[in-house]
Amino acid sequence: MKLDRALGLLREVPDFPLPGVVFRDLTPVLADPDALRAVVDALQDRIHPDTQLVAAVESRGFLLGAALGYGWRYGVVPLRKPGKLPSVTHRVSYALEYGEATLELPAGSITPGQHVVVVDDVLATGGTAVAACELVEKAGGVVTGVSVVLEIPGLGGRERLAGHRVDALLTV
Amino acid sequence: MKLDRALGLLREVPDFPLPGVVFRDLTPVLADPDALRAVVDALQDRIHPDTQLVAAVESRGFLLGAALGYGWRYGVVPLRKPGKLPSVTHRVSYALEYGEATLELPAGSITPGQHVVVVDDVLATGGTAVAACELVEKAGGVVTGVSVVLEIPGLGGRERLAGHRVDALLTV
Repeated sequence: MKLDRALGLLREVPDFPLPGVVFRDLTPVLADPDALRAVVDALQDRIHPDTQLVAAVESRGFLLGAALGYGWRYGVVPLRKPGKLPSVTHRVSYALEYGEATLELPAGSITPGQHVVVVDDVLATGGTAVAACELVEKAGGVVTGVSVVLEIPGLGGRERLAGHRVDALLTV
Repeated sequence: MKLDRALGLLREVPDFPLPGVVFRDLTPVLADPDALRAVVDALQDRIHPDTQLVAAVESRGFLLGAALGYGWRYGVVPLRKPGKLPSVTHRVSYALEYGEATLELPAGSITPGQHVVVVDDVLATGGTAVAACELVEKAGGVVTGVSVVLEIPGLGGRERLAGHRVDALLTV
């Protein structure tokens, strides 16, 4: 399937999670095996060739990152919300629009010098992606880029990631 | 990589999440591309051949289910914790050892009559797996089985899933 047809399956949901926000729902893309493959292969096409490992951001990043890892032979490191991991190497907290969030890196998952791409579904303000890059770097990993399906410009995400390569399949 | 070598990477963590419980940590399996592939392909080997769709349980089931879907050309339906989905078709709550949990099925993800395998990392008491099967069936799907990496017997999971095929790569 062509990428634009796959991305055409994204479903727009107005006023979620907040009034005025249009949520792009990945569900129909994931549920279609050809669309899933087209999207994951398009992520792969754009990833820096030195990449060795995928850092997948909980939870929707897990779906994309694990598919990418299986398909293109990368190891996968889940970056998790607090309290899920039996042993945590590093932890980064960051501000959300309302409140704060934390990501944790599992022990023994990144070897210093490994080249790691951060994968998530959406790049908006960049808070999560910046935290994910910090986690990788705290473990001695080299961030090769941030790969997302959807970028929402005007919220400063790309700017906050200055110095990192950012690849998005769709900008809305 | 052979399956037993891949499963040999599972890391045992005593007293997590509760005293007396030995947690088997998938992190080293996921982080190794050959082990990830061996485990996912072993799940595929055991899945009922009528299967058309993978229902992946949040969050570790997302990692396994999405890799399986990409690799073996299934659509993937994420079964989510509450509050994440913009539109929910069905919802099932179930008892945990302490408290209650809920899984939600995204709108428009399962067509009546579709054959669906439920994928998660661990089968223990079976509460989550039973809820996942109920969700699939509420949407008109036919559950072809429950596939997990690890089964912990003696907690009643397999018995509570009576009538459903259960495939586990490892029983401890």
